[in-house]
Amino acid sequence: MQTTSSNTNSNTNTLCKLFAINFPIIQAGMVWAAGGKLAAACSNAGILGLIGAGSMSPALLREHILKAKSLTSGNFGVNIPLLYQGAKEQIQVALSCGVKIFFTSAGSPKNYTPYLKDKGATVVHVTSTPELAIKCQEAGVDAVVAEGFEAGGHNGRDEITTMVLIPQVVQAVKIPVIAAGGVVNGAGIAAAFALGAQAVQMGTAFVATMESSAHPNFKNLLLQSKADSTMLALKKLVPVRLFKNCFYQQVKELEERGASAEELQQLLGKGRAKLGMFEGDMVHGELEIGQGCALLKDTPAIAELVARLKQEYQDAVAALPSF
Amino acid sequence: MQTTSSNTNSNTNTLCKLFAINFPIIQAGMVWAAGGKLAAACSNAGILGLIGAGSMSPALLREHILKAKSLTSGNFGVNIPLLYQGAKEQIQVALSCGVKIFFTSAGSPKNYTPYLKDKGATVVHVTSTPELAIKCQEAGVDAVVAEGFEAGGHNGRDEITTMVLIPQVVQAVKIPVIAAGGVVNGAGIAAAFALGAQAVQMGTAFVATMESSAHPNFKNLLLQSKADSTMLALKKLVPVRLFKNCFYQQVKELEERGASAEELQQLLGKGRAKLGMFEGDMVHGELEIGQGCALLKDTPAIAELVARLKQEYQDAVAALPSF
Repeated sequence: MQTTSSNTNSNTNTLCKLFAINFPIIQAGMVWAAGGKLAAACSNAGILGLIGAGSMSPALLREHILKAKSLTSGNFGVNIPLLYQGAKEQIQVALSCGVKIFFTSAGSPKNYTPYLKDKGATVVHVTSTPELAIKCQEAGVDAVVAEGFEAGGHNGRDEITTMVLIPQVVQAVKIPVIAAGGVVNGAGIAAAFALGAQAVQMGTAFVATMESSAHPNFKNLLLQSKADSTMLALKKLVPVRLFKNCFYQQVKELEERGASAEELQQLLGKGRAKLGMFEGDMVHGELEIGQGCALLKDTPAIAELVARLKQEYQDAVAALPSF
Repeated sequence: MQTTSSNTNSNTNTLCKLFAINFPIIQAGMVWAAGGKLAAACSNAGILGLIGAGSMSPALLREHILKAKSLTSGNFGVNIPLLYQGAKEQIQVALSCGVKIFFTSAGSPKNYTPYLKDKGATVVHVTSTPELAIKCQEAGVDAVVAEGFEAGGHNGRDEITTMVLIPQVVQAVKIPVIAAGGVVNGAGIAAAFALGAQAVQMGTAFVATMESSAHPNFKNLLLQSKADSTMLALKKLVPVRLFKNCFYQQVKELEERGASAEELQQLLGKGRAKLGMFEGDMVHGELEIGQGCALLKDTPAIAELVARLKQEYQDAVAALPSF
C-alpha cells in the first residue's frame, strides 16, 4: 500500500491551514462544558478550541474570550447557535474581542455569513443534511460541519448517521467537510477521514476532560455509560440527544403517549441543561451528550488526550489491510 | 506511514479464511432480494453470498440453495431470522442440502449455535449491542455481525449507530467482528475497517444489483432516494428501517398520535413486504432498506460492483493523511 500524503499532511491539510492548527480536530463548542479554559487548552495542544456561546450571556462570553486570550496565543473560535435571541449580540462581542473564527449552527447560514465574511472572519456552519450543506456553500462559508445522528445535543430531524451523511456531504459541496457525531477516538477519526472528511469536530470526548467546565458528577456519570445510555428525544420540540437519566424517563413517558409540544415544553421548563451539566443534578437535569460516551474511559488533560488521539489515528491507519 | 499488512491481507484475514473468500465482504441475506442467483454471483465474485431465508418457505429455500449450487462451486451461506416459526425447518433443509455457513439473527444465539456447530457448520449471529455480542461469543459463534441503526430492515431498539457500535463490539469480544449498517461503498468499507471490523456485511447496495430479486420498481426508486428517504419505524412492534413511501406515512401518522402495537399490527397486516419489494407496489408495500440507499447511483452486475468496491477501498485507504 502506497500513501499519497503529499497533499494531505498537517502542513497542507486545508483546514489545518485555515485554522492554523497542527492536527485537524475541532473541539466542539458545547453548552456548559466549553469555556475559555477548554478552548485555550485545545489551542495550546495544536487543535482548534471553540467557546460554546450557547449557554452564555454576551457578558459571560466576553469573560470567556478574554480568559482564553490570557491562556493561549493560539487561534480559537466561538460557536454561536443562531436559534437563541442573544446570537446577534454574541457575535458583536466576539468580533469586538478580536475573535476571527465563527462556527454557527441551528439557523440559516444566510443570516450572518456575509456579514462575518465582510468583517474578515472565517465562518463554518453546522449541517445535518447534504441539502443544507449546499445552502451553506452558497452562503459563502469556508467549511461545513456535517453532524450525524449519534452526536450529542441538538440534532437533525432526519436521523442521518455520520457513516452515511459524510460521503453525501463530501459529494454535495466543494468546500472542506468536518465530520461530527460518534467520533471519540483515533479510530473514529480515521473512519471519518476514510469517508472523505478533512477534519473532525468532537464534543463528547472533550466534555470528559480535566479542562471542561462540565460538573464532575456529569463527567463521572459518562465514565459509567453504556452503549444504550443515550437516546434522541424531544423530537416535537428540537430533537436533542440526552443521557437516559430520570428526567429523560419523564420525557419518554410523555412521548410514548403522544404528548404535545406544549406538554413537553412545560416538562422541560427553563434551566434544566444548566441544572444537569453545570450544577451536577444527575436526576432532574437535562444531560446532552453523544452516543459515543460509551467509549470514554477516563477524563484526561487536553494535552494527553490530543497526543493519544494522534497515536490512535496512526495505529488505526497502519492496521488497515490491503487486498 | 508504514503498513502492517503482514497479518491482514486477503490470504490471512481471519474471515477470508473462514469463508474461503478473497475480499471480506458479506452480501446480506435480505428478504425478497437475496435468492440463489444473487448468492451464487457473489460467491463467484470472491465474496460471501447469503440466501435470505426470511422470506422463504422451507421448500422455496431448498430451491434457492439448489439453484445457487448449480451456479457456483464457491461457498455460500444462508441467513435465518430466528423469530419466524419456520426457522427450525429452514435449518434442517439447509443442512440437508449441504450448506455449511449459517448467519442467524433476531433471536437468541443459544438456540441453534451448539446444534449447528455440532453439525460442523460455521455460525455467525447478528447483534445490535455489545452485550448481545458477548452472549454470541459465549454461545460459541465463529463471528458476529454488528449492525448499526442505519441498516435496513429489522433493527435494534437502542439505535446505536455503526460508528459507535463497531468499536464497542470489537472491544467486547475476541471473535472477529463484521460491520453492517451504512456501508455501501469502498469508503464505507475502509471506515468500518478503521473502526476495527475484519469484514463488512452489506445489504442495501446488493438490493440494487442486476442479480437481486427485488422488483425493478424498487431498484429504480432507490436510485432516486435522498438522505432523508428512510426512517426507523414500527418501534412498538419490531423496529424496522423503511423507505418513506405512502405506507410509511400511514405508519408515521399512527405513531405520532401514540397508537398501540395492536393498531400498528392491524395496519401492517400480512404480506406487505412482499407486496412492495418483490411485487413492486411502491405505494402500499413495506419497503425495507438502509439509510445508505441515498449513495446508490446505479444497479451494476455483481462482478462489476465487487471490482468497484475493491478499487474504492484502495483509493480511500491511499488517501488517508499522515500527521
